[in-house]
Amino acid sequence: MELELVTIGTELLLGFTVDTNSAFLGQALGEIGVRIARRTSVPDQPDAVASAVREALGRTRLVITTGGLGPTKDDLSKNVVAELFGLPLEFHEEIWEAIRARFARMGRTLSERNRCQAEVPRGATVLPNPRGTAPGLWIQGELGEVIMLPGVPGEMRGLVTQEVAPRLRQRAGGRVVRSLLLRTTAIAESTLAERLEPVEARLAPLTLAYLPDLDGVDLRLTAWESEPGTAASLLEAAAGQLREQVPEHAYGLGEEDLASVLLREYRTRGLRLAVAESCTGGLLGARLTAIPGSSDVFVGGVIAYDDEVKRELGVPERILQAHGAVSEETVRAMALAVRDRFKAPVALAVSGIAGPAGGSEEKPVGLVWFAVADAAGCETFRMVFPGSRHDIRTRAAQYALWRGWRRVLASATRL
Amino acid sequence: MELELVTIGTELLLGFTVDTNSAFLGQALGEIGVRIARRTSVPDQPDAVASAVREALGRTRLVITTGGLGPTKDDLSKNVVAELFGLPLEFHEEIWEAIRARFARMGRTLSERNRCQAEVPRGATVLPNPRGTAPGLWIQGELGEVIMLPGVPGEMRGLVTQEVAPRLRQRAGGRVVRSLLLRTTAIAESTLAERLEPVEARLAPLTLAYLPDLDGVDLRLTAWESEPGTAASLLEAAAGQLREQVPEHAYGLGEEDLASVLLREYRTRGLRLAVAESCTGGLLGARLTAIPGSSDVFVGGVIAYDDEVKRELGVPERILQAHGAVSEETVRAMALAVRDRFKAPVALAVSGIAGPAGGSEEKPVGLVWFAVADAAGCETFRMVFPGSRHDIRTRAAQYALWRGWRRVLASATRL
Repeated sequence: MELELVTIGTELLLGFTVDTNSAFLGQALGEIGVRIARRTSVPDQPDAVASAVREALGRTRLVITTGGLGPTKDDLSKNVVAELFGLPLEFHEEIWEAIRARFARMGRTLSERNRCQAEVPRGATVLPNPRGTAPGLWIQGELGEVIMLPGVPGEMRGLVTQEVAPRLRQRAGGRVVRSLLLRTTAIAESTLAERLEPVEARLAPLTLAYLPDLDGVDLRLTAWESEPGTAASLLEAAAGQLREQVPEHAYGLGEEDLASVLLREYRTRGLRLAVAESCTGGLLGARLTAIPGSSDVFVGGVIAYDDEVKRELGVPERILQAHGAVSEETVRAMALAVRDRFKAPVALAVSGIAGPAGGSEEKPVGLVWFAVADAAGCETFRMVFPGSRHDIRTRAAQYALWRGWRRVLASATRL
Repeated sequence: MELELVTIGTELLLGFTVDTNSAFLGQALGEIGVRIARRTSVPDQPDAVASAVREALGRTRLVITTGGLGPTKDDLSKNVVAELFGLPLEFHEEIWEAIRARFARMGRTLSERNRCQAEVPRGATVLPNPRGTAPGLWIQGELGEVIMLPGVPGEMRGLVTQEVAPRLRQRAGGRVVRSLLLRTTAIAESTLAERLEPVEARLAPLTLAYLPDLDGVDLRLTAWESEPGTAASLLEAAAGQLREQVPEHAYGLGEEDLASVLLREYRTRGLRLAVAESCTGGLLGARLTAIPGSSDVFVGGVIAYDDEVKRELGVPERILQAHGAVSEETVRAMALAVRDRFKAPVALAVSGIAGPAGGSEEKPVGLVWFAVADAAGCETFRMVFPGSRHDIRTRAAQYALWRGWRRVLASATRL
């Protein structure tokens, strides 16, 4: 089952508002088996709204609109759609009373402008909106059906959850669109695609999408139009097969964060972790401490940004002199020093050139050295990351987490 | 001048990706006098892409697409548009070389799959994309023009700024929509509205919007459909007047970050800064080091997450015992210790309860203590922030930066 979405608002097209409503609707409808076939955004102009809604009805006969139900003069969606369906607007006393009561409760003055929010196209179903003044409307006619929702995110969400989804679920008849995200890191998209090829060829009817970002490549598996139970088991089985192709890179499912995966592995083993950060400047610590309950694993660390702090931490002056702050020797000394100072079983250190300035031919912007130290010793890694200062730092924090995670899993295998 | 935008990606319709590209494009084009008349989002399906692009061309003859230029098989935008225009794809050796060089620089293996990213519809202008592998394409034909951009936000933005906007600006040459953001922090929205009231009444024809978020309340001033020169001077004058009403809270314009404002003030005065972070866990350091060139001001610091690290830093055991880790006494000791250890003229310290667990009646979740220490002594501040763990940590890092900034400005006045 599919429908089209028309989002109405000049501010959406000017880019003053990021359209988070569409993402919410996509997920909420997908979960009950309704697919958004197309989304159109138009400004608050009668002609633009009318043509977008008419065209969308022509394709799917079922359309959800958001926005344009407010009390100001650029809120004209309702009038446009009523005219499209040839329906007169009727004043509903009980809606007006609800609006008045709401304003009274908040101690606000009601304006005559709000009266238009109590007008309803003849025969439309009124969807109560306790979070705001404008109710949702479900309009039916020869052209099909239009479900009109307010654009205020909290109001729209409440109406979808309480009024729209329950009604649509019955019609969609149980078949759903479900997705599952498998998260990978520290592997290039093209290499990943090669490694996954044998499994990918056998995935149908599931589809696979590659979603690269700074933390790695997320793989989205989607089951289209399937039974809810079947969808879940198909997705899990497929995710398992993909995971086996890249076990060292596939770290989690769904919204799972690598920091949280790392913390769980450490916690299981009773290990604790300290960090010494130069170019990431606190980002690695921030990633770890963003996770609730991180304090039982994460000890803390040193932001060794200036060489003065590196020296104070215990990096020997001769190493800084001979090799520089961004070097294998320095990052190893940082990891060992922070491990010993804070008596942590495992320590991670990062030192690199985040740019935009500070690069040279020998040490380009993007060069980052990593060290992971534990009781067994210290491993170092060299990477050159592309992108801006922000990109390089984000990638470096993620890579450090990845190395910290792999080190502990590898040690487990070794011992 | 107007165009239509077609964003391509199944993930957009499923709601797994929030469409931030559209907001960026709306603003970037508005600033050069180009209006987005309609935006259409379609899934990665050849028919859906073809019909959306064809219809959009029929209305405006100029279309920007985003997405579908990657190396995987669901990336099909280019093929679809080439077919629509009746243009064969031609392999460009120099694009292939650029992709190879990029992969070589990053020490990554190039896959044969990437070859399709070097294919260009005959006669199209290639827009170089140094941030990624797929170049942008500007295709012209009987149907009109299509500008194809990758969907990866960083790459898309770079291409718009460096390749697309300069070319379109020449053609547009008309009235623009310009806005200017004035950023405020550490003041409630309602208090801010009261303080700004006298100025707000005189702002017309400019409009003012309040945009609260975790870092404070941004004020967006907008000049609608005006001459570029007039808009800029009206906006700047109005921002100046607003700023005078709340000088201690209004810290910057546009995208300006409080960390960058703080660093500038310190740099001017030859001051350096160190931090000791508990509940923010590195976030404060990360905010400061996100700014290029921060190393001449920011020394570094200690992530004193575990009490063991607080003791090692120099917080006396008796203070931790008597008052706890989240207390005025501890945060003062942290600031003084880090100031002395790293010989920094100014030190900031943060200790709080970010939740979700760990709160009590006396010390609720959201309670955060701050200290700012310099040669003249140490000030402390107590705040209780609302929201989730993420919200509380974000607000705490911003508040610490605000106190660090105000301290230095206040000292300057005092001396």
